[in-house]
Parts: sequence; structure tokens; C-alpha cells
Amino acid sequence: MVGDPGRDRPTRADVRMRGFADRASVEQATRWIDAHARILADEELDAADGAGRVLALAITTKRDLPSEDRAGEDGYAIRAGETIGAADYNPLPFALGSPDDAFPSGAAVPIVSGAAMPAGSDAVLPFEAAQPSQGMLEIYAPVAPGSGVERRARQAAAGTVLIEKGRRLRAQDLGLIASIGLGRVRVVRQPRIALISAGPKTSGACEVQDADEPMLRTLVRRDGGVVVHVASQAGTRAAMVEAITTHEADAVLVAGRTGTGADDEAPMALAEAGELAIHGVALRPGGSAGMGLVRGTPVVLLPGEPLACLCAYEMIAGRLIRSLGGLDPEPRDRCRVVEVGRKIVSAVGLVDICQVRLVGDRAEPVGSVESGGLLPAVRADGFVVVPAPMEGYAPGARVVMYAYGEAGTGGRNDGERGG
Amino acid sequence: MVGDPGRDRPTRADVRMRGFADRASVEQATRWIDAHARILADEELDAADGAGRVLALAITTKRDLPSEDRAGEDGYAIRAGETIGAADYNPLPFALGSPDDAFPSGAAVPIVSGAAMPAGSDAVLPFEAAQPSQGMLEIYAPVAPGSGVERRARQAAAGTVLIEKGRRLRAQDLGLIASIGLGRVRVVRQPRIALISAGPKTSGACEVQDADEPMLRTLVRRDGGVVVHVASQAGTRAAMVEAITTHEADAVLVAGRTGTGADDEAPMALAEAGELAIHGVALRPGGSAGMGLVRGTPVVLLPGEPLACLCAYEMIAGRLIRSLGGLDPEPRDRCRVVEVGRKIVSAVGLVDICQVRLVGDRAEPVGSVESGGLLPAVRADGFVVVPAPMEGYAPGARVVMYAYGEAGTGGRNDGERGG
Repeated sequence: MVGDPGRDRPTRADVRMRGFADRASVEQATRWIDAHARILADEELDAADGAGRVLALAITTKRDLPSEDRAGEDGYAIRAGETIGAADYNPLPFALGSPDDAFPSGAAVPIVSGAAMPAGSDAVLPFEAAQPSQGMLEIYAPVAPGSGVERRARQAAAGTVLIEKGRRLRAQDLGLIASIGLGRVRVVRQPRIALISAGPKTSGACEVQDADEPMLRTLVRRDGGVVVHVASQAGTRAAMVEAITTHEADAVLVAGRTGTGADDEAPMALAEAGELAIHGVALRPGGSAGMGLVRGTPVVLLPGEPLACLCAYEMIAGRLIRSLGGLDPEPRDRCRVVEVGRKIVSAVGLVDICQVRLVGDRAEPVGSVESGGLLPAVRADGFVVVPAPMEGYAPGARVVMYAYGEAGTGGRNDGERGG
Repeated sequence: MVGDPGRDRPTRADVRMRGFADRASVEQATRWIDAHARILADEELDAADGAGRVLALAITTKRDLPSEDRAGEDGYAIRAGETIGAADYNPLPFALGSPDDAFPSGAAVPIVSGAAMPAGSDAVLPFEAAQPSQGMLEIYAPVAPGSGVERRARQAAAGTVLIEKGRRLRAQDLGLIASIGLGRVRVVRQPRIALISAGPKTSGACEVQDADEPMLRTLVRRDGGVVVHVASQAGTRAAMVEAITTHEADAVLVAGRTGTGADDEAPMALAEAGELAIHGVALRPGGSAGMGLVRGTPVVLLPGEPLACLCAYEMIAGRLIRSLGGLDPEPRDRCRVVEVGRKIVSAVGLVDICQVRLVGDRAEPVGSVESGGLLPAVRADGFVVVPAPMEGYAPGARVVMYAYGEAGTGGRNDGERGG
């Protein structure tokens, strides 16, 4: 990892019917992405709509939580000192008060969890330890001072950061936000993504359905983006140039036509519409990926072969979308260290993406990096990235698995505006 | 774990201002849920809308994948035997054919990845190993038979199960479904959930905002359900009875008014509307949870205190929603084995839910089970369940952490019909 993005020597020659003379390293590709992925602006949102959104400003409590001593459980507010000596065979009598009265000595007042402690009381006696009897309350057990009381500021003192900036809001985060009465939150705008696919190959006898579009829609949503524009049959260079330039997206993904065939027009289309910075990455599958800029907007070229498309998305395009949306470019939430269960074989000189499934807590490779098709990824729980200098991993090695995670439930039309 | 759900002795006495005489075990509670959570019927759906949905029927390929020998990379289709001896200093000349011609001896035909191999050819030579020259093609390297060819059925033979029933569809699953030309899928109907909350407590001096409703909406969505009905101010028994009985949901969650205070009407409302099977579970936080049936529809009572609500949701209500929707009742995707980094303290006799965060790969407790409020869960990556007979876990112990996972992005109005 030497040099800076500006000094990289990208490969941008026409590779059609010649092959890749050289490829950028995965490090060069991710450095290019990181250099061109600026976090988007904030927007304000009803907190109730904040699920899955990325917090742009830390949330701090202005007051102590709780803001006064309060009951931590249901029972009777009481003076603990007055319960000393109470026992099953020595019940002590207390006057049953009401929450609105003053709190005289010898009183016990019913209180519900969350209510402010009456001034003078210092403990909550559980209902089970008392019994009303002839208008009085008999108490059967002593209680320690502070018992059943949640002290002012016990959860957090005024000024405490409750939720850090950059958090992708989960259920409990939204609950906490509601509990402090915050109705609006500042979040990072969702990256708007244009999806362009060439459509099925026309030059071969074997019809290939377009798997990439539904797959990419779901991946974009998983990574916090929203698909705003889709061009599905942009197979010619002119159609691609048109699609790459006509949208209101923050980033563009082009799927297909990235290889070395005569009709692999995507890199030329990007070069024509703007600038092709990198074409060809030392990644397997996914080696024909590319990237560049059109009027400042990053465009990622993904191979059409579905497994290659998936791997290039995970290593390159997903990183871009996560960064634009204020998430960690590395999907750390989905990373876990696992032990290798069966040997993972890899080629030296390429970053290999190995599909793995968990058998117990050990990762076993599924399929081979050389076989095409999505089936290995469908059978996998995640993937392992084998760095370029390595020949693979032996059983027992500890490696990082990137879990695919679950797709959020959603239809194809979520947030889509173009078409 | 003895007996069956029918023989459980549930606690259903009025606990108000008396306390829980006894509580059901967590096992009894989950057994009751499992006995009353019947998987919902299937429905057919456009595959493009299938993200996050649960497959009701396995997907099998009717044909071999691929259905014929095809090129696995871009290059020239060739007879491998004819390339023997080719080298940089011994280029062999081939006739450049076209894909539509017959494939005579001595021919090389440009082919794109995914196209059917011409009859007679048995390998794909990469473009890099050849150079057009004066209408001919010079070949600089030999190629082995089968090289660059993806054999018929290499991915899967006709009849192979590609995706198992019960899978929650991810990006690559949708890609594979599209790639075999399947336009519709059979999925389990999404559980329709009615959310009923009592609203802020009225009997205490300390105002408590309702954190539970936004939290539960997000949890329901995470677990594959859809909120179809919300009643937010159902604080009285009559309002609760009305809300519990007036909806078109597959399950009902009631948040709040489950405790031992005078206004804790939820269990009585459930008993009045139908049957209160269990009230009080040996779980901390979450011990005032309950459950029952109204006209065959399961109703889960969740404590109002937000952390208790979250824990009871995770242990009880989430299990119900996942089962209704055809998912594993145990959220195995979110489980991981981790090492305890700092001592986890627990009480014998209760199942304790300990919020933990990962520090490196070790789980450290956040906050205490005794402190209220959501902050510990907000700071946590997941939770550890400490079984009732245990006092906790020492550092170094290996335990299962239930990761909270990410919330899918979504607003409050997803799929909502009632209100």
C-alpha cells in the first residue's frame, strides 16, 4: 500500500478481445473508492421514521435520566428505617397514605414503577411483603434504604451522549429517542443509487437471465441506499452513456458488459461519458470490475456474471454506498472471526473471495471460486477474503467471515423515482 | 422441562397490589408460544418483491445449470488438441471463424463468457494468448481440454434443490431465482401484528414517554412481521379489551400495564377478552410478561418499562412472530459464540438477560440487569441469556450472544392498515 489515489496508475486501455494487460490491486480499487466517497449531507426526519437510518449528530440528554428519584418497581413507598424488625411473626403496622398527601412518619403509600418517590420516603417495599388489614398496612419484612428506588441520574447524567453519531438506528435506539421526548433526528441522507444493467447477453446462444438487477437492488437496500433509477436494457454503448449521465443519483452501478468480449461496452461507455479510472481488479471472481467518475459522481462497473457481480459489489460498490451513507466502509457488524473447517484454496496474486458456510462454528468452503453461478453464494452464510499473497487457509486457521446478513423485507419499488 | 403445554399450571390470579405469587418458567412460556404459533399459509409473490420473505416451497431447477457446455470466460473457442506445441517463439496459426459457422479443424471462434460452446470445440483460449495477424489468429500458448469451459450441469443437475424451504430470501437468492427465469415464488404470508400500548403512565408524577411503540414496530419488522394495527392510548381496561378484540392481526402485542400496580389492567383485559394463560415469567428484566388467547389469536403482554419490554419481546414475542412467519423460533442467524470478557453476574432462579457489547471478540456486560432504561441495550451489541440455575459467567467462559442485528430501513407506515 504505497502512493496516494492521485498517483495510482490505473489500467484503462481497451481490453476487448485482448484481455487485461494488468489489473489494479484491490487496495488501489478501495483507495479510489475511499477517495471519491464523500459522506452525504444530513437531513432531519421524524424519529418514528428513523429505523435503519444513520445518525448524523450524537444524541445527548439535556436532563438527568431519570430526572428525579423514582420507584423502580411497584409497591409501597416507605421510610426504610421504620421497617426494621418487621418479620412474618412480627408484622409492623403502617398508615396507608395516598400519593397526593404529605408523607408523615409511619406512612406507606402505594406507588407504581416509574413514579416519583414522595418526599420523605426512601425505599419501595414490594406488595408481596405487606398486607392491608383493617385500613392499615401490615409489613412482614424490613427493606434497605434505596431498595426499589431508581436514583436521579442513575441511567445517565445530563450531558451524557446516549447514542453516538454514525449509529445505524435499531429498535432500542428509537425507543430511547422516544423516551426522552425527541421527535426529530438528524440523519445522513440515504445514498440514491442508479442501477444500470445491460440486460441478457445477446451474442451467445445460451440465454442468460438478468440475475444482477434484483440482487443489486437488495444489496443496495441492505447497505442503506435507495434505488432511484433503473435502466434495464442499456446494452449498447449509446444506451449506457445515456443511462450513466441521465439520473439524479449519488452513485451509479452498471452491471454487465465489463469483460473482454467484443460487446463489452461498459468501460468504453464510462470513458465516453466521463472518466474511466480503473478497469480490471486483481479480484476473483470480479476481476473485470471498474470505476470512474461522471461529473463528479462515482460510477462502479460490475461484471455481469452474477457471482462475480456479487463479489465485486461486496468488495467495491458496497463500500462506496456505505461510505456515502455515513456507515463504516468495512461492514464490521457482519464480520466475525471463525475457524476454518475445511481447507480454503486460493491463487497467489489475486484476492480470492471464497464462499463459506458455517458447520457448527467452523467455516467450510462452498463450491470453488472457478465455478460460475450464484449457487455457492446461495448455499453460503458469508465469504472469506484471501489476500493476494496467500495460497489459502489450512483447517484450524482463524479467519474473518463476512456474513451476508439478512435482507430487509422490501419490494422492488421502495423509494424508486426514475425508471 | 417436564409436562406438556396443556398441563402447565399457569399463574393467572390478579396480582395487582399483591405481587406475583409464582411465575411461569421461561421454558413454560416458550412452550406455550410454540404450542400456539402455527405457521401461516403461503402466498404467491413476484420474485422481485421477495427480499426478506420466507420461502414456503423449496426451489428446484428443472434443467441442468448450465443446460449445455458453455464458455466460462471470454476468448476463443478452440480444439485443445490443436494447440499442443504453441509457444511465444512458436505461434500456431488458426483460421478466425464466426460463431454462426460450422467449426472446422484448425478454427478459432471468438466467444463470450456464458455462450454455448460450438460443437467440436472443447476449450476456451484467453484473448491474451492469441493475436490476430493478417486475417488469421496466432496462438502463443497451449490450452488443456475443458479449460475455460463450464460443463453442462456443473453448477447443478436437473432436480437439484437450489434453495431450501424456510430460507429468508437474500440478495443472491433473488439473483439465482431470476437467473433460472422464475418470476413468482411461494412464500409464507407475513405475520400481521396488532400493537397496543397503554400510553404514558398517568398515576405517577414522573412523565414517561412511550418508548415501546417505536421500538416494537422496528422489532416486528426485523422479525419479518408487519404492523397492521396500532392502538396507542389504550390505557383503560375497556379500551384494551376493545383493542385486543378489534383487528385483523395474526398476533397481538400489548405493551404496558402488566405489573402489580393498581392500574395494571392488561392481564385483566386479556382475561376478559379471552383467556389469560400465563402472567408472570421468571425472567429479568421482563418478569411481568404474560400471554393468552383471544378467539384463537395469541396475545403477548409485554411490560411497559422499555428494557423489560425489549427483553420480553426478544424471549417471547419475537419467537411467536418468527414462528408464525416460518422462521426458526430461535434467531440462529443472530447467535454467535463469544468469550466472556468481564464477569456476568446473575441471580439464581431467574433467567437473566444481560446486555453485552463486544470489545474485540469478547463480550462485556453493559449496565446491570437492575438498572432500568434502554441505555444498556443501546450501548450493547447483543445480549446473553443466563439460565435460571446459574449465578453468571466468569471471564473466559464461552457463551452464546444474541446479536441485535440491524434494523431494516423503514418508516412507521410500512404495511399499516388500521390505526
